[in-house]
Amino acid sequence: MARAAEPPSGTRDFLANEVRRRKTAFDAIGAVFERYGFDPLETPTFERLEVFAGKLGEEASALIFKILKRGVHEASGEADLALRYDHTVPLARVVGTYGSKLPSPYKRYTIGPVWRADRPAKGRFREFAQCDIDTVGSASPLADAEIVCAVHDGLAALGVPDVQFLVNSRQALRGLLEAYQVEPALGERVLGSLDKLDKLAPEAVCAELVTRGLPSATAESLVADLTTPNTDRVRKQLDTTERGRLGLAEVDRLLELTAGSLPAGRVVFTPRMVRGLDYYTGPIFEVTAPGYPGSIASGGRYDGLVAALGGPDLPACGGSIGVERILAMRPADVTDQRGLDVALTVLGAEETIMSLAAQLRAQGLRTGVYLGSSRKLARQLSWAHDQHARLALIYGPDEQQAHVVTVRNMDSGEQTQVGLAEVAAYASRSRC
Amino acid sequence: MARAAEPPSGTRDFLANEVRRRKTAFDAIGAVFERYGFDPLETPTFERLEVFAGKLGEEASALIFKILKRGVHEASGEADLALRYDHTVPLARVVGTYGSKLPSPYKRYTIGPVWRADRPAKGRFREFAQCDIDTVGSASPLADAEIVCAVHDGLAALGVPDVQFLVNSRQALRGLLEAYQVEPALGERVLGSLDKLDKLAPEAVCAELVTRGLPSATAESLVADLTTPNTDRVRKQLDTTERGRLGLAEVDRLLELTAGSLPAGRVVFTPRMVRGLDYYTGPIFEVTAPGYPGSIASGGRYDGLVAALGGPDLPACGGSIGVERILAMRPADVTDQRGLDVALTVLGAEETIMSLAAQLRAQGLRTGVYLGSSRKLARQLSWAHDQHARLALIYGPDEQQAHVVTVRNMDSGEQTQVGLAEVAAYASRSRC
Repeated sequence: MARAAEPPSGTRDFLANEVRRRKTAFDAIGAVFERYGFDPLETPTFERLEVFAGKLGEEASALIFKILKRGVHEASGEADLALRYDHTVPLARVVGTYGSKLPSPYKRYTIGPVWRADRPAKGRFREFAQCDIDTVGSASPLADAEIVCAVHDGLAALGVPDVQFLVNSRQALRGLLEAYQVEPALGERVLGSLDKLDKLAPEAVCAELVTRGLPSATAESLVADLTTPNTDRVRKQLDTTERGRLGLAEVDRLLELTAGSLPAGRVVFTPRMVRGLDYYTGPIFEVTAPGYPGSIASGGRYDGLVAALGGPDLPACGGSIGVERILAMRPADVTDQRGLDVALTVLGAEETIMSLAAQLRAQGLRTGVYLGSSRKLARQLSWAHDQHARLALIYGPDEQQAHVVTVRNMDSGEQTQVGLAEVAAYASRSRC
Repeated sequence: MARAAEPPSGTRDFLANEVRRRKTAFDAIGAVFERYGFDPLETPTFERLEVFAGKLGEEASALIFKILKRGVHEASGEADLALRYDHTVPLARVVGTYGSKLPSPYKRYTIGPVWRADRPAKGRFREFAQCDIDTVGSASPLADAEIVCAVHDGLAALGVPDVQFLVNSRQALRGLLEAYQVEPALGERVLGSLDKLDKLAPEAVCAELVTRGLPSATAESLVADLTTPNTDRVRKQLDTTERGRLGLAEVDRLLELTAGSLPAGRVVFTPRMVRGLDYYTGPIFEVTAPGYPGSIASGGRYDGLVAALGGPDLPACGGSIGVERILAMRPADVTDQRGLDVALTVLGAEETIMSLAAQLRAQGLRTGVYLGSSRKLARQLSWAHDQHARLALIYGPDEQQAHVVTVRNMDSGEQTQVGLAEVAAYASRSRC
């Protein structure tokens, strides 16, 4: 017998309770997205390698799992397929593949695994679920607002309380750089430093900005204005440039369009919020919640990305819920443990027992029959206990003679005799 | 813009209706298996390559998708991981990995994709779902009967009518060879020929048996006895050897134990039924249904397999439902098409529209907001029509002034004015 192996590094086996927990979570999010009129999409586990070529950048490309050619080509050591790295590249491919056969705009959600050959660490996996919602083909601010509201309701369905959407705009960020007269060449690096304001002390960020070449007076006023809860100063600055005004208008439109749908204070203009990814072109958001480290969801508008990924040139916006992060934070619920409704012991008359099981299952009761080799009742009741059974049924020689079944309440140990023909109805009624 | 690419050969994109159809089917089967006390299991998409080594036979091994090593090892052209070929090898690994942490017996089901680099053909895919149910750690005939009943109910949940379980036993097959005095060396080849009796004419099988070395008198009586609907002759023959008697007892026990659960005539002793796979050790079954070609489910007892696959030496039995085959046979239902309950047109007052959408969604209504750029009502109503919307809401300047919403029934074209505050309740009530 070979040594029992663990699942491959960075992957997990999901046993019963974990499968149920994940399915419940994914179904809950899916139901929310369906209410918003989004359609599900499932793409293959792998795509042709060329679909990824030049799409992901060097760092991401190194993390792709590649599939070796098959048959006589295997010896070449070459790959022609690659596991899905995210749901965005396949989305762009699908929009290209099906074109006008898709609804316009195409509102889709995908909740499923992606694969990245990252170094495994606590909470970082090589196979993990991503939960994406995107609208391709609409430039309307209503589409951005809809994504924010859908992500909000998705998080609520997962039971995450008091979420806060930090909202900004790539236009506003560019306007900010202009307003504070940051040299264009320094722009991205300055934004990179500002992005750390949620983790580092203002002084540290200020120092870094200076190191990166920003005059210290500029660095100081930028950091001071961005760390004040009140955004009036920044708003006034943004108002001095056209880009800034455009960005501010985008942010304010998103605030207005979500105000009637979400509880007050859930969406907050956060001018220091950058979102690392440079493919965003319009409003962007990150979601935080008390007790959850970092962001638990994020998204924004990315009008050029679908075309850059090989799809048609369509405006798009979307969001992603960090389901793995959220699931990891929530302790396994006791109710996750799914016991049997009825455990049938077997002390002879097996045909009758099986027929009884069929009747119980027809009532929708989760029913197990003892499949071990012991003929001792105590041993079989211990199995019923291990199965977290609510009721155990005993149908021994005495019961057979009297045409009854002994029904044992596994919590109280109380036993009742019930007519053979009434057992299914009795067990069904006694369901809590 | 790059050319829109198809999904990789042998794989499929599942668009909205197909995802819903598959999810409905898989959930229905899962609910049945849960009622039988089976637990879900999900293993990683790939396993270490060595988990498969020597487990699958040459033919199957050639069909494995292998994953190239990553990083600096990529250049070696070597693989270290492989996509799951079936759900049985991972099950054996899991039983080895978790041992006594699993319930005993371990009753599990898995419904999910497997990958095989088969030549794609109509109805044959390289990524396809398998639906397996297995009990590991029970030698009880009750376990075999439970699998048969669970598969039966799973097929019923898929809406497959009038299924028939063809039941046999590997012991009975060996007994059959003894009873008809087939030389041991010819055994497997004779069984291979008999396996074709469901496709070929008896004469053709008889001729093949003779070609394979069986005396023609033996071949004739064997084929004649196996093609008579009445099994009395075969039963009498099996009764002449100990193996035959054991096999017959296995079959009859399965018939008895399922008789009280399944409608009469659903389980039939079929002595000619072989099941190609030589790992079966006890009762075996194949399921047919009118209108479905070939078998739509199958299974049996395979006591040595878990150990042979690297797991502990435990008895086991299981079954598999051919979900892809069944899904392919069922025409897409019109009701699969999931339209919007409510489509909101947008002619201004966007904040109010978004807030209205939130109220409708809170009622559980699938609600879409027009996200296009046209401001023409006719164009927007045409979008609502494309979305298969039941109701369309219009909130233009007139409605705004009167604090009402025009609700249009998209089927009848009938329009009603409803107070702004009552719209959600109205739309919810009018749901069919």
